[in-house]
Amino acid sequence: MMKIDVLTLFPEMFEGVLGSSILKKAAEQKAVDYHIVNFREFADNKHKTVDDYPYGGGAGMVLKPQPIFDAVAHLKEEAQSTKPRVILLCPQGKTHNQKIAEDLAKEEHLVFICGHYEGYDERIREHVVTDELSIGDYVLTGGELGAMVVIDSVVRLLPEVLGNEESHQRDSFSTGFLEHPHYTRPADFRGMKVPDVLTSGNHRLIDEWRGKESLKRTYERRPDLLENIELTNEQKKWLREFENQKK
Amino acid sequence: MMKIDVLTLFPEMFEGVLGSSILKKAAEQKAVDYHIVNFREFADNKHKTVDDYPYGGGAGMVLKPQPIFDAVAHLKEEAQSTKPRVILLCPQGKTHNQKIAEDLAKEEHLVFICGHYEGYDERIREHVVTDELSIGDYVLTGGELGAMVVIDSVVRLLPEVLGNEESHQRDSFSTGFLEHPHYTRPADFRGMKVPDVLTSGNHRLIDEWRGKESLKRTYERRPDLLENIELTNEQKKWLREFENQKK
Repeated sequence: MMKIDVLTLFPEMFEGVLGSSILKKAAEQKAVDYHIVNFREFADNKHKTVDDYPYGGGAGMVLKPQPIFDAVAHLKEEAQSTKPRVILLCPQGKTHNQKIAEDLAKEEHLVFICGHYEGYDERIREHVVTDELSIGDYVLTGGELGAMVVIDSVVRLLPEVLGNEESHQRDSFSTGFLEHPHYTRPADFRGMKVPDVLTSGNHRLIDEWRGKESLKRTYERRPDLLENIELTNEQKKWLREFENQKK
Repeated sequence: MMKIDVLTLFPEMFEGVLGSSILKKAAEQKAVDYHIVNFREFADNKHKTVDDYPYGGGAGMVLKPQPIFDAVAHLKEEAQSTKPRVILLCPQGKTHNQKIAEDLAKEEHLVFICGHYEGYDERIREHVVTDELSIGDYVLTGGELGAMVVIDSVVRLLPEVLGNEESHQRDSFSTGFLEHPHYTRPADFRGMKVPDVLTSGNHRLIDEWRGKESLKRTYERRPDLLENIELTNEQKKWLREFENQKK
């Protein structure tokens, strides 16, 4: 069972997300054990202060080292885990991606540290944290949403968490192409129709249509993804077709 | 006041996040009004079914057009808004970034559509949706976390939602560099010390140290960000220094 600890000042943010859908099911199946910890409890000062002014001046507060050092030490001891991955969510981190999610899914113990508004004292980065992650190039209020995103991307990869149906979709992602369009009933919805090929019953043509649409969507929206894929001759032909249409 | 509607099958996922911190404060200040809608309520069939098998076969279910078409029409009418931005969260979308957040922050009405496991019937994309967004290159269980991330990145930009302290930090992000290290008390924490310059009281040296560390961190971790910044002569000199250290 994977153990996931989250250090945060806003534990109530996690309930709805960890208590729904796949993340909930994973805990019920004992594939994962979540543990949300308010690190304010570890502050050794009378007022349970966790942040302080920055050395050298400037706006914004900085998270003090002591509460986080002691919280992580406690969690390691409690889990009897000597080498958890300790992940700091921050804009300076490596941009999260599917490969990192797959890598983290092999671990037994993950600890997430979520700051909020504040910066982190650099000694936390240097001596406690093993990985710094960012979920994208946008500014968020805190690390909590980032932690939830990383947790979701990791937990759904744990063996037996998803059924066959879902693993199939994952495979389709790992081909590196964006998905082709999907349609369901009715075939005519208020005058908007499903492409004829999909109702033809001809599976060779359906597969070809899907492969081509998938390539087209990737070409139009995320051409960067094509750089890492070795294309078949048919796909190269389609690509020339799209390029000519564009001219 | 900005109006934000979210269409989801998992409304309970949103409570903790929208009810905490800045997102909660923004609602209390009447800068934003959140409205979480279970689009299952709009299904016009007896069993309130929202998904169906894909035309052409294959694994996975597809979200039907009717509930989402009707839910969005209802929300437009209710808000008397003729042109809301209707945002679909999906892996095929444009990758979210700070510029998109700034753009969305100028709107009066945003509608987010969150699927879960399923694909979307293409007619939803073509006739209802104005923007498709992805928060990053990783697979998530549903669009809910993506919607929360986009909402957080947008709402914190609304006028008067953040105090001066925070807007300052935002400015620092918009310089394009990663932030320099931060330190707070104690100056010596269990033998780990704060750099002398930060306790020197010499603000010229402190600013220089911070500027250089900020550039160094960007150079080491996200050299791609430097491509879009015009560097000063001093910064160019520092960059050559870092390059030489690496050799």
